[in-house]
Amino acid sequence: MTIVANELEVKGQAARAAARKMAFLPTEVKNKALLSIAETLSTQEAAILTANKKDYEAGLAASMSEALLDRLLLNRNRLQGMASDVRSLAALPDPVGEVFDMHTLPNGLTVGRKRVPLGVIGAIYESRPNVTVDISALCLKSGNAVILRGGKEALNSNAALAHAVQQAAVKAGVPQDAVQFVENTDRSLVGEMLQMKDTIDLLIPRGGEGLIRFVRDNASMPVVAGGIGVCHTYVDSTADLDKAVAIVYNAKVQRPTVCNALDTVLVHRDMAQRFLPRLAYELGKAGVELHADEEALNILNREPAVKAIPATPEDWGKEFLALIAAVKVVNSLDEALAHIDRYGSGHSEAIVTENYTVAQRFLNEVDAACVYVNASTRFTDGGQFGLGAEVGISTQKLHARGPMGLKELTSYKWIVYGQGQVRPG
Amino acid sequence: MTIVANELEVKGQAARAAARKMAFLPTEVKNKALLSIAETLSTQEAAILTANKKDYEAGLAASMSEALLDRLLLNRNRLQGMASDVRSLAALPDPVGEVFDMHTLPNGLTVGRKRVPLGVIGAIYESRPNVTVDISALCLKSGNAVILRGGKEALNSNAALAHAVQQAAVKAGVPQDAVQFVENTDRSLVGEMLQMKDTIDLLIPRGGEGLIRFVRDNASMPVVAGGIGVCHTYVDSTADLDKAVAIVYNAKVQRPTVCNALDTVLVHRDMAQRFLPRLAYELGKAGVELHADEEALNILNREPAVKAIPATPEDWGKEFLALIAAVKVVNSLDEALAHIDRYGSGHSEAIVTENYTVAQRFLNEVDAACVYVNASTRFTDGGQFGLGAEVGISTQKLHARGPMGLKELTSYKWIVYGQGQVRPG
Repeated sequence: MTIVANELEVKGQAARAAARKMAFLPTEVKNKALLSIAETLSTQEAAILTANKKDYEAGLAASMSEALLDRLLLNRNRLQGMASDVRSLAALPDPVGEVFDMHTLPNGLTVGRKRVPLGVIGAIYESRPNVTVDISALCLKSGNAVILRGGKEALNSNAALAHAVQQAAVKAGVPQDAVQFVENTDRSLVGEMLQMKDTIDLLIPRGGEGLIRFVRDNASMPVVAGGIGVCHTYVDSTADLDKAVAIVYNAKVQRPTVCNALDTVLVHRDMAQRFLPRLAYELGKAGVELHADEEALNILNREPAVKAIPATPEDWGKEFLALIAAVKVVNSLDEALAHIDRYGSGHSEAIVTENYTVAQRFLNEVDAACVYVNASTRFTDGGQFGLGAEVGISTQKLHARGPMGLKELTSYKWIVYGQGQVRPG
Repeated sequence: MTIVANELEVKGQAARAAARKMAFLPTEVKNKALLSIAETLSTQEAAILTANKKDYEAGLAASMSEALLDRLLLNRNRLQGMASDVRSLAALPDPVGEVFDMHTLPNGLTVGRKRVPLGVIGAIYESRPNVTVDISALCLKSGNAVILRGGKEALNSNAALAHAVQQAAVKAGVPQDAVQFVENTDRSLVGEMLQMKDTIDLLIPRGGEGLIRFVRDNASMPVVAGGIGVCHTYVDSTADLDKAVAIVYNAKVQRPTVCNALDTVLVHRDMAQRFLPRLAYELGKAGVELHADEEALNILNREPAVKAIPATPEDWGKEFLALIAAVKVVNSLDEALAHIDRYGSGHSEAIVTENYTVAQRFLNEVDAACVYVNASTRFTDGGQFGLGAEVGISTQKLHARGPMGLKELTSYKWIVYGQGQVRPG
């Protein structure tokens, strides 16, 4: 226990001290570091993939679920994707120092806001090793120090990636202690970290519902959490059939283990007879199992290519993270909105429609981080949205909502230029 | 206890239901309601001041401190100031519905953020009745419902003001339940309110350090807190003497009982001999008592008009909220920065200087919500900064920092316009 606390304490204090320097690090040093990190992911590919193989095989041996194994897996393609995200970050403007809302008051005071880093970001995450690189790179560019605490099941992968990041960053002139990687994966460490409110300015939990809830309920510092995505796509009576099939198929099949994947399809009664058989055929080929309400089931059962069973009440509002989708026939847009309001997790919701007013109502009335018209919910991602990468997807409304990129890792201070003004009265 | 919980529960559910309607309330209805509230403060002036007199006399009888009595007091002038702030709010643009960061991605998706209300704001405050009007008006314009829970010592004033606000708002077309005023001032109610995370989206405590700490430590929902202001003004060796005296005098004397009032003067050694005697003379006339370090005391004691005593260690970092200031001589800008870093509360900090580089360093390096060059810290205020009014002054970095106006009571959602896009790979 003492040793555990000590590693955290030492690394926390080192991060705190580095954060002061990070706030003033020139943009060119930060960008150089990012490009150097991207390159290192390629030059150290062999070592990283070897480390990842160890974790993956241990996961296999421990009968880890397919969803978790997919999250854990690294390969050349994924490493290159990570490097490409880091390069995109280097190309983005530096958020630190941006002055906005500057205006001159009637009394001559010039008042505005200047963007500053938050300080020290803490990240507690589970099985996805890309988080190590994404969060480090975002913190670096936004002038924050970071303390990374990844899951036990990805320790070798995370350590290899963190090592690559640290080496590359320091070589480019980033303070030595800006990126801290906690090697001890003892569970009690999470509890200790949650009490470090004097060291950590913002804590970001990334992982399953259990972790996120535990962090949110027990952290002494602010937390931005999300990750749980119960995502609906509503196929309106006016939907373009080809778009509807392609969008629902993509949202469910392209990467079913992530939070922005589709969980429930809602389809308007007037569209069900045309849409569901085609959808069933396509999803059936991909091995998707459907949990359908009675009306949908009657239609789906005519398509032998797909496995369709009756939905239970637990299927509504469930995040499947697998090749399973719930299907429900609704009578109206209002019924779809009410269903989403009741069962959605405020992550990503989509409509497929050709009707202008229906599209506008859906955009306005759905209360979620990301609301789509005629596109796959799979786009909810900092990289896809042009933020470079993301530290996570917030489903809360305070501070940041949806994909959190650079700006979302900053605060601001008010700066006031006077010429001797005093307040009358 | 059951009755207590019931009032809160009933009002909470009513506010929650009203919040849905508030989110879509047309700007013109909201502005009409604000102008109507401003007018009501004048037509109901007699009733409000009578109610306030009751509270004030009870406060006097209970030997309430002068600082608290000043916070509690309403008069025609203060009512008119409140009305004027509410009218300013009506003139400001509606933050709700603003679309920003809209851009089209290479794949043709159009992605941006749309500003939306937070939902239900809870306010727990102590002796300042103007909070009732300020927060109601800000919540109304930003499309939020609000639950107000003021202090026992201001109950009559708050009830009269809340009643005026509710009447005026409903007459203009605002949903009946948008502004909820909790009449029960039982202390246990605060604890109940802190657990209502399903009802209240953001809790704003306004008051003394004890209340703020209690709310921050025990709330189940997000809290934006501030209010504690340990404010320094540093008089540099290059300061303009007249500006320095006027700014320090104003920051200390103009309204000593509020959080943006000056607590500590730091003066550069090369300026001390010229500055301190003049300051002592002016502050002495205003009845300010000085707690000075040895070097400052030697100079101050030459001026018989002021009471100056040796500072104790507790004087540094103390929020006096009274006609008392600490005074310290420093050797350099760096020493001043280090003192502010150690003892400041991250609220408002000022420098008086004619040196460009010194001014820039102070603006950059001081880590506080509001940083001033050559102006009084008394300007830290939503109304003064052009925000119309404020729900409070945040000394935290997440979500909002400094005066919180309309924008700070909103979140956003990402809206995505597609033409059938799906994610490749």
